[in-house]
Amino acid sequence: MNAVAPLDGLTVLEVSSFVAAPLGGMTLAQLGADVIRIDPVGGGADLGRWPLAPSGTSLYWTGLNQGKRSVTLNFRDAEGRRLLGDLLAASGPGGGIVLTNAGQPWLAHPALARIRPDLIHLQIQGHRDGRAAVDYTVNAATGFPLITGPESLEGPVNHVLPAWDVACGLYAAVGLLAAERRRQRTGAGSAITLALADVALAVAGDLGFLAEAQIIGTDRPRIGNHLYGGLARDFRTAGGERVMVVVLTRRHFADLAAATGLASPFAELERLLAADFGEEGDRYRHREVITALLEPWFAGRTVAEVERDLAGTSVLWSRYRRFTDLVADGTLAANPLLSHITQPGVGSLLAPGSPLAMDGTTGPRPAPVLGADTAAVLAGLLGLSAADIGALAQRGIIGDS
Amino acid sequence: MNAVAPLDGLTVLEVSSFVAAPLGGMTLAQLGADVIRIDPVGGGADLGRWPLAPSGTSLYWTGLNQGKRSVTLNFRDAEGRRLLGDLLAASGPGGGIVLTNAGQPWLAHPALARIRPDLIHLQIQGHRDGRAAVDYTVNAATGFPLITGPESLEGPVNHVLPAWDVACGLYAAVGLLAAERRRQRTGAGSAITLALADVALAVAGDLGFLAEAQIIGTDRPRIGNHLYGGLARDFRTAGGERVMVVVLTRRHFADLAAATGLASPFAELERLLAADFGEEGDRYRHREVITALLEPWFAGRTVAEVERDLAGTSVLWSRYRRFTDLVADGTLAANPLLSHITQPGVGSLLAPGSPLAMDGTTGPRPAPVLGADTAAVLAGLLGLSAADIGALAQRGIIGDS
Repeated sequence: MNAVAPLDGLTVLEVSSFVAAPLGGMTLAQLGADVIRIDPVGGGADLGRWPLAPSGTSLYWTGLNQGKRSVTLNFRDAEGRRLLGDLLAASGPGGGIVLTNAGQPWLAHPALARIRPDLIHLQIQGHRDGRAAVDYTVNAATGFPLITGPESLEGPVNHVLPAWDVACGLYAAVGLLAAERRRQRTGAGSAITLALADVALAVAGDLGFLAEAQIIGTDRPRIGNHLYGGLARDFRTAGGERVMVVVLTRRHFADLAAATGLASPFAELERLLAADFGEEGDRYRHREVITALLEPWFAGRTVAEVERDLAGTSVLWSRYRRFTDLVADGTLAANPLLSHITQPGVGSLLAPGSPLAMDGTTGPRPAPVLGADTAAVLAGLLGLSAADIGALAQRGIIGDS
Repeated sequence: MNAVAPLDGLTVLEVSSFVAAPLGGMTLAQLGADVIRIDPVGGGADLGRWPLAPSGTSLYWTGLNQGKRSVTLNFRDAEGRRLLGDLLAASGPGGGIVLTNAGQPWLAHPALARIRPDLIHLQIQGHRDGRAAVDYTVNAATGFPLITGPESLEGPVNHVLPAWDVACGLYAAVGLLAAERRRQRTGAGSAITLALADVALAVAGDLGFLAEAQIIGTDRPRIGNHLYGGLARDFRTAGGERVMVVVLTRRHFADLAAATGLASPFAELERLLAADFGEEGDRYRHREVITALLEPWFAGRTVAEVERDLAGTSVLWSRYRRFTDLVADGTLAANPLLSHITQPGVGSLLAPGSPLAMDGTTGPRPAPVLGADTAAVLAGLLGLSAADIGALAQRGIIGDS
């Protein structure tokens, strides 16, 4: 066991809102970094983002800011802005790190590098050229909504998961750690920009979508819940519930054929079509007839019966669940990823920690109340007295703790 | 300018397939790490994954393995397996790092830590308890497909982007960098497990979906292309093309109302409904009537006219595009994220580098041909002679280079 948290000694100042930058900071906080989210007095534009607890506390904000400390400064006042620079200067050898999606010049790299020459500064923005964009406009611009959803559909299907924001936040965590590694070796800081639109384009490229458009020159068709180039689809079961079934290898297919008693019909069909369903391409080409043959098997069984009959096989499958099912069926309670926390304004709930299971990390910790750590951070990093801090609060330079 | 790549000196042995682990390794390679993907002779299960170039080369495999070196070993032979251990032992102070989604015991942490006590080992797996799962089963199990897509739909809508695989790969990169930071400070290695199912649950928790299910106790409705808790939706334009429009703040809404000439009707409507459309909650509650009022404005304009009329406002919007549009309209060529590479088996294409724009990184580099670096890596790390390497290849212990 390592007693030391992986990111022990790292201090990050985060001036952020919405998903990407807060998730990036939280990812580091979950591994032991001291992440101080600094907001304008009264909070950022994301403070009241839905869903809300009955108290009005945002479940979104509290979800994305767990384990951080919260400081509020008056960004409209030069003295408030200067305090951020003072915190940066005082943040120690593992500090001098700023993560932000705010666009103000006083928060940009050139201004802050004057305070801390070894600054590591990561700027999240919409487009590389500085134009604004958010997950939902980036997603529209990138090609996925027009190939998502039922074949019969004509318009786009937006995602509910802001996948680009999530990827962007994780890339931000990677970028800060990579830059800090270099700084430890060379002493040099880094100015990093990370555009949400570039995250989407990069991932689309990594997965072959951009190569396909360039090399093959056609658009992938909309294929409903099928998996492109493979055999995977949802099936309705006897109870009306759906299951997702995924066949990636020859063995998966052989196991599925055997478990469903369809080995002979599939073999006949392979002869008829001069196909080999052990090959991924042939499974994909003939996906409609293969899944049509499978449908009655699933339609005649409840999920429990599917589970029984596929047990011990290599077939990959899952019941479709709702978020409330995850609560009701005990999935959340049974998974050590989640632990009970008491979140101010929300109450007791099961919250996830980092999915990176490694020693030296703790379970989930609540998000701070906005501004709750202002006094402690100013005292701890800047050595300000309670009287100094009280005076700053009274003058409106900092928020009340 | 820093001449040194952020991850200069880091060496990662990757035994991987499909998306998550390869993307994790590639993310590190893009920042300067020497990432050696080690496959069984003949390649892994993902080598022929669609889409394919006309030559049969996988655009998926080449997309996810850019900038790595490729070594093939005979995993069925004890000598082939021992060579992997030898490479691990010889990989230097920035080495001793293994990233894998393979499940064989000889590749697991306990076996490899005997070779390299300071081993950093990251194991990607389906579930935390070791059960298999893939992106598409995890997605079904997590709640998103049943709230994605048109309101009228009854069944699930699967995603086309394997978002959990992408997030998992990026978490893997974070985990390896965090562990390497700790090793530099304490000398201790790390055994890290990262379950795809945990990635999905963690992100669902971070975004408030799990808190909502626990605290509010109801499932979020399926709301088509609307944005939950906000005002955002697609609109059809005069040419039949669609645009996505996103309003996140009071200013966005005021700008949209002014640009569309609907400020007065919206003000009347606010009085009628006793609502304040400057407030996100009220915009969401009245999303249907607000968007119904906006529809004719978009329907009466081409995309070019929308662009003209929204220029200079804060309104966030984008045209929906297909991947082929990104090629045809010059988006790919214009973005410095992408550069031309010559990919063996594919030809010349525009490929993305890392979206992390920071000095010391290079543009995109091609993926290796399977096994092409076997001889060079065995010579370079193990000091084997050409004769030794030739003999190993002849005996089938390693692949041909």
